[in-house]
Amino acid sequence: MIRPNVETFIGCESSFEEASVVLYGAPFDSTTSFRPGARFGPSAMRHESFGLETYSPYQDRDLMDIRVFDSGDLELCFGSSEMALLDIEKRAKEILKADKLPLLLGGEHLVTLGAVRAVFEKYPDLHIIHFDAHADLRDDYLGARLSHACVLRRCHDLLGDNRIHQFCIRSGEREEFQFARSHTDFHPFAFDGLKETVRELKEIKAPVYFTIDLDCLDPSAFPGTGTPEAGGVSFLALLDAIRTVSQTNIVGADVNELAPMLDVSGVSTATACKVLRELLLAITE
Amino acid sequence: MIRPNVETFIGCESSFEEASVVLYGAPFDSTTSFRPGARFGPSAMRHESFGLETYSPYQDRDLMDIRVFDSGDLELCFGSSEMALLDIEKRAKEILKADKLPLLLGGEHLVTLGAVRAVFEKYPDLHIIHFDAHADLRDDYLGARLSHACVLRRCHDLLGDNRIHQFCIRSGEREEFQFARSHTDFHPFAFDGLKETVRELKEIKAPVYFTIDLDCLDPSAFPGTGTPEAGGVSFLALLDAIRTVSQTNIVGADVNELAPMLDVSGVSTATACKVLRELLLAITE
Amino acid sequence: MIRPNVETFIGCESSFEEASVVLYGAPFDSTTSFRPGARFGPSAMRHESFGLETYSPYQDRDLMDIRVFDSGDLELCFGSSEMALLDIEKRAKEILKADKLPLLLGGEHLVTLGAVRAVFEKYPDLHIIHFDAHADLRDDYLGARLSHACVLRRCHDLLGDNRIHQFCIRSGEREEFQFARSHTDFHPFAFDGLKETVRELKEIKAPVYFTIDLDCLDPSAFPGTGTPEAGGVSFLALLDAIRTVSQTNIVGADVNELAPMLDVSGVSTATACKVLRELLLAITE
Amino acid sequence: MIRPNVETFIGCESSFEEASVVLYGAPFDSTTSFRPGARFGPSAMRHESFGLETYSPYQDRDLMDIRVFDSGDLELCFGSSEMALLDIEKRAKEILKADKLPLLLGGEHLVTLGAVRAVFEKYPDLHIIHFDAHADLRDDYLGARLSHACVLRRCHDLLGDNRIHQFCIRSGEREEFQFARSHTDFHPFAFDGLKETVRELKEIKAPVYFTIDLDCLDPSAFPGTGTPEAGGVSFLALLDAIRTVSQTNIVGADVNELAPMLDVSGVSTATACKVLRELLLAITE
Amino acid sequence: MIRPNVETFIGCESSFEEASVVLYGAPFDSTTSFRPGARFGPSAMRHESFGLETYSPYQDRDLMDIRVFDSGDLELCFGSSEMALLDIEKRAKEILKADKLPLLLGGEHLVTLGAVRAVFEKYPDLHIIHFDAHADLRDDYLGARLSHACVLRRCHDLLGDNRIHQFCIRSGEREEFQFARSHTDFHPFAFDGLKETVRELKEIKAPVYFTIDLDCLDPSAFPGTGTPEAGGVSFLALLDAIRTVSQTNIVGADVNELAPMLDVSGVSTATACKVLRELLLAITE
Amino acid sequence: MIRPNVETFIGCESSFEEASVVLYGAPFDSTTSFRPGARFGPSAMRHESFGLETYSPYQDRDLMDIRVFDSGDLELCFGSSEMALLDIEKRAKEILKADKLPLLLGGEHLVTLGAVRAVFEKYPDLHIIHFDAHADLRDDYLGARLSHACVLRRCHDLLGDNRIHQFCIRSGEREEFQFARSHTDFHPFAFDGLKETVRELKEIKAPVYFTIDLDCLDPSAFPGTGTPEAGGVSFLALLDAIRTVSQTNIVGADVNELAPMLDVSGVSTATACKVLRELLLAITE
Repeated sequence: MIRPNVETFIGCESSFEEASVVLYGAPFDSTTSFRPGARFGPSAMRHESFGLETYSPYQDRDLMDIRVFDSGDLELCFGSSEMALLDIEKRAKEILKADKLPLLLGGEHLVTLGAVRAVFEKYPDLHIIHFDAHADLRDDYLGARLSHACVLRRCHDLLGDNRIHQFCIRSGEREEFQFARSHTDFHPFAFDGLKETVRELKEIKAPVYFTIDLDCLDPSAFPGTGTPEAGGVSFLALLDAIRTVSQTNIVGADVNELAPMLDVSGVSTATACKVLRELLLAITE
Repeated sequence: MIRPNVETFIGCESSFEEASVVLYGAPFDSTTSFRPGARFGPSAMRHESFGLETYSPYQDRDLMDIRVFDSGDLELCFGSSEMALLDIEKRAKEILKADKLPLLLGGEHLVTLGAVRAVFEKYPDLHIIHFDAHADLRDDYLGARLSHACVLRRCHDLLGDNRIHQFCIRSGEREEFQFARSHTDFHPFAFDGLKETVRELKEIKAPVYFTIDLDCLDPSAFPGTGTPEAGGVSFLALLDAIRTVSQTNIVGADVNELAPMLDVSGVSTATACKVLRELLLAITE
Repeated sequence: MIRPNVETFIGCESSFEEASVVLYGAPFDSTTSFRPGARFGPSAMRHESFGLETYSPYQDRDLMDIRVFDSGDLELCFGSSEMALLDIEKRAKEILKADKLPLLLGGEHLVTLGAVRAVFEKYPDLHIIHFDAHADLRDDYLGARLSHACVLRRCHDLLGDNRIHQFCIRSGEREEFQFARSHTDFHPFAFDGLKETVRELKEIKAPVYFTIDLDCLDPSAFPGTGTPEAGGVSFLALLDAIRTVSQTNIVGADVNELAPMLDVSGVSTATACKVLRELLLAITE
Repeated sequence: MIRPNVETFIGCESSFEEASVVLYGAPFDSTTSFRPGARFGPSAMRHESFGLETYSPYQDRDLMDIRVFDSGDLELCFGSSEMALLDIEKRAKEILKADKLPLLLGGEHLVTLGAVRAVFEKYPDLHIIHFDAHADLRDDYLGARLSHACVLRRCHDLLGDNRIHQFCIRSGEREEFQFARSHTDFHPFAFDGLKETVRELKEIKAPVYFTIDLDCLDPSAFPGTGTPEAGGVSFLALLDAIRTVSQTNIVGADVNELAPMLDVSGVSTATACKVLRELLLAITE
Repeated sequence: MIRPNVETFIGCESSFEEASVVLYGAPFDSTTSFRPGARFGPSAMRHESFGLETYSPYQDRDLMDIRVFDSGDLELCFGSSEMALLDIEKRAKEILKADKLPLLLGGEHLVTLGAVRAVFEKYPDLHIIHFDAHADLRDDYLGARLSHACVLRRCHDLLGDNRIHQFCIRSGEREEFQFARSHTDFHPFAFDGLKETVRELKEIKAPVYFTIDLDCLDPSAFPGTGTPEAGGVSFLALLDAIRTVSQTNIVGADVNELAPMLDVSGVSTATACKVLRELLLAITE
Repeated sequence: MIRPNVETFIGCESSFEEASVVLYGAPFDSTTSFRPGARFGPSAMRHESFGLETYSPYQDRDLMDIRVFDSGDLELCFGSSEMALLDIEKRAKEILKADKLPLLLGGEHLVTLGAVRAVFEKYPDLHIIHFDAHADLRDDYLGARLSHACVLRRCHDLLGDNRIHQFCIRSGEREEFQFARSHTDFHPFAFDGLKETVRELKEIKAPVYFTIDLDCLDPSAFPGTGTPEAGGVSFLALLDAIRTVSQTNIVGADVNELAPMLDVSGVSTATACKVLRELLLAITE
């Protein structure tokens, strides 16, 4: 019997029904202000994942042991942020309704807003843990309030003060840094303070949305992204941080901002795949 | 006296007041559905133009002999097509009001709509001559009516039947080709019929907006574009066609869809510069 | 209902049962002697095909009107040509047994041998029409008789004299050209003589295997291949030749030697997709 | 009012009169012996700087708070090192005469010599702090004494022993290392000893020319340079060292050896921009 | 007198007779399962080595002081692993017979097996020190037992338990890690334990074959390889480890898995050259 | 017996004594005003030539039948045009003295001047046939009289009027075109008039220096060059023209301006190799 060509992230071959985690891709980058191409991130990760092993020697766990369903990429409207966000939110809600964890593959960082809207509806006491080089806290960007540069500000509109926990931030306007110091749990440059934040979130049993902008990594480790920022964290530091965060009650997550057109050596895509593998293994433990 | 760094397309150093043609760039590609990057087209052309001579041996004319002002790139909002189009339209109107010819550098092809709106307001009997690989006649694209794939359809909404003259078209949905055969002056694949079209437009003294999607060129001559389509015209054929069109009463024009990120050898940018030089020399004759 | 991520060549979404043509990919390039990477050809074509329209204005036909099933890529053993060829042959036989036309996507040109073995078993009076820059008629290459440089010679071992019709050949050892002049129907450089060859094959109602090495195209049109050879045919000439060949009784076919790693602008992959679309539409007419 | 296209490094929009620092670019690489292209460094930095924020969270300072004038690139003669150096020297003198700090953007490292000649004329007790992977202390290179490989040796001809302070050096001929140990304040491999050197220079209130060859960075952080040398310093170490050096009396500076043609991911250009921003903010404190 | 063009790795210009070390290249990558191109590694290293100094400031030694002969690349059969391995083994034996140390430049890692067979014949008590990101301990890969993914397993077939010392390993199937823990001296992730291993090998005066898969380096330092694995060691750590290993009795060695087609910035080739220089200087001390 | 690694252009393995043609490379591009890198042209051609067959089906001749010696690349001083030209002239004279034909591989076009000086000394009635996109007839370029943009003007200084025959020229200042029309045998754009020129040169038995700037080819066929100019000739037209010119008494020749760094697909290097093969076969007939 000859079968059609099903392409999933490696080892994510569970059925929807059996799965505890559902991958969904948001190939969108219309508001990217510098170098576009993050739209191709999720399909590149799926495609190049066959160069990755399913086994993690870091966690001594294997993707073959867990149950993940890959629902592929949404077909999103380019040029209308609101329409794209609605489609993302709708898919996230379907997944949540089936009591599975939605794991979004971006795309530019704005896509997070669609997912957060859905998760926040289900978990009004939601916290967000945010790894990123950029604060993403502008109120608008050249007039647009739905922009990758504003996405955490829009999340703040929903969640309010002290519910967003930011790490690795090393770029933004002065106003964003000032806003962060007043309104978010702000940890610039690296992961200092992460363990304490996680301890507190565990204590209050907070539901957590975990968003990883891959440009939190140093450009030496992850050059393939639209706005690289020197001075980031190493892969091993990120890996350690992911395992720390996974001790909280994660109810939604995303990995975003891989731009394969800028990843000429393929190293960034391979690293993104490895981050996703480790994230999947950590949150299903 | 040390001067600041003014960067113009080579030879376009006239003042605004003296100029008969004004260049303006629209670094926008948010609705691009396949491979983005046309936003960088106008700045790349300006930047790489210093590898080009100002003299054209084809026309025995020199950019130093004519008067062109380069107003640089507009600062456009990514993620909102309507806001971007309004800014383009506004700039075109300013130029038209000063009785100069607005020459737009794209950007994706949707930017043409902003310019056409401005030119059509001044010249209600406007015709459009359109060189392109793609018909761009969809009524909507994944729900968006303001999309590069719909731009000539939106122009048709303004101008009505038989006022759009299309050449080189070799890609589209069946419905677009059917629409074209009923509603536009349609010449697929190459420049067959161009001379007759031009003769007729000269007879009726029609004002003409001339839009060149550089992907009308064969990908061998112009690989650096988002959606290359094999089977296009040669550079020399395009050059000849530009000189033919320049016999009409051109009141506005654009050159678009160079995507420098895809132009790894630099050949496409160099060719785009040469097309622009020849266009400037032809329309000012 | 959320579905898994099925990825096919655009418009090839028929079920196996309904299909008249079945695509199968052979991601193999182990014997490539110069620059490898053709292994990634079939998946790149599938992946990038979404930048292509399903409608052909050249033939006024649409992939949506025909029935093609895409069975994805075989999982082939690298480093053993014989094992890889057996797997290809096996898949071709399955398709032939179901009375469907097997259309192979390479991979390096050696993969053709697996398909030809299967087709030849069913059609002992088989002819081969071969478009290629290279004669591929060596008896061995550095000791290996199963090499891309020998593949038509191995086909000749099966079919014998005057059953292989070669076009566009412009590279090889002197001995290969001498062999060709004695043993094949040999048309160097271009498509001269193709119409007559096709007329004769139609007269004798010969079953035809049609193998297209995409490097028959000029490198200007198709740079993304392991061994580019200046002086090839244009895309439009190839398109015309495909439609001519499609008048014969084609019982198997392949398209090979796209090397996406060398296709930095993406133009070659886009062109390969367009060749495949036109081939599918022509052979199902 | 439509203005012409002025392009400066981001945030460097002061007038010449008001500025305390003046940027000038030297797009020259004619003596580069390995891989050329540093000529495009200054324009690439200017062009890509719009992807950078003007605010530095490291120093809590903003380019909008200081006064820098960007005079663009000199038009230098390729093929004659002496003519190019004279033009650089002339520009540096103009800037020094107006009592502003000349900050040169290279170009290959030889351009430093033009600037040092001008600064040395004004400050005969000049010291040089030199960050580089390469010693650049050859007496000649294939017969040329004006070569990037000789530039610090030529500076030594002017300044004499113990006035050149070298850091990060990890490549050179044995003779260069021997010369360095006898004639310069030599700190191979990293920044060991920098604090003490700076303390001594502060004590004697020495005027300092600060030259940063960006290849002092490890190639993982800065691949886009002609002669990458594994084993360099990290971005954060460089940032720290820049702030240390800025405690001295800096009277001239340069940043050189970015080769954008080799920076396919754009990471090196982005990093060079960030180095320049931090340097500007540090020296104007 | 005009001489022909002899191209060697820089400074390796000794005659065969005088040499104590002989370089030989194995341009083979037919079993590479992910991204091929390692075949071009040895010639790229030779070609780009002229950008490297012959002097090492790390060891204060110079290639001009030692005697190395570069015998160029073998002409290997693509598509037949066994034939290629025989040719490699034959060349290694010739070199060993002349009492010189064979230093192989790969190519994919499978080439090591040819060299180890030759060295093992001469030194039956051979140990292997193995630096690699991948365990390479599969018993077969898609049916092939001669595969890059199996090469250390094949070496284990020869040498047996506890004679293979593995470092930096961070990727493999669970079964490979289990095999390693039972059958090899296994040090995952980094160089922990290397000093002790070396001390023991010195004590027993074991002859050592030293194989360096360059992907042991972190992808930030070495992106140009077929299967990059985040989380590797730094260049300086590798340099230190090489000097440690060189205290043992090294009787054969190789450096492999540079894939120049993936090394768009040239940094990986430059780093591979530097690794080879340091290795040559260390083992001849 | 193990031999060192001799690397020649494929099939050019004759000894100096036996050879009738001697290749010599001039890896120089210091005066290139736009994009450098032609310095790597000759070594890239040598290196990539192993992807080419030695047999030409166009001429039914084989490099194995003729006697060519490849003397490798000169070691030229970067940054001093005059020193580089002297070294080239010296080598050309050595070859001429041995009554062999010097065939120079550039490098930028200025290198031709060194060879022409040598050939002109031996043949004072020398003519030059010049294929190029650019006139190269400036009297100086930014003050330099030894520049690629002036090279034919410098040759005119030696030879005087009507001894330089220019073809394919399509770029230059107005003054260059005016100079050409008065002082050279000038054929812009293509090869019109070549047959007549050749007939006349045969009649007067003129010794001919034949210089091919590969950018005479259209950028679609030859993108890998510093200053590509749309509107050039095809490979087959160039091949035909070479065979026409080879009917004259060629006493020196060169092929120049391949810039491998810009040849990302490798197509330009492959084409340059094919041009050289055909030139070698044509001039030795």
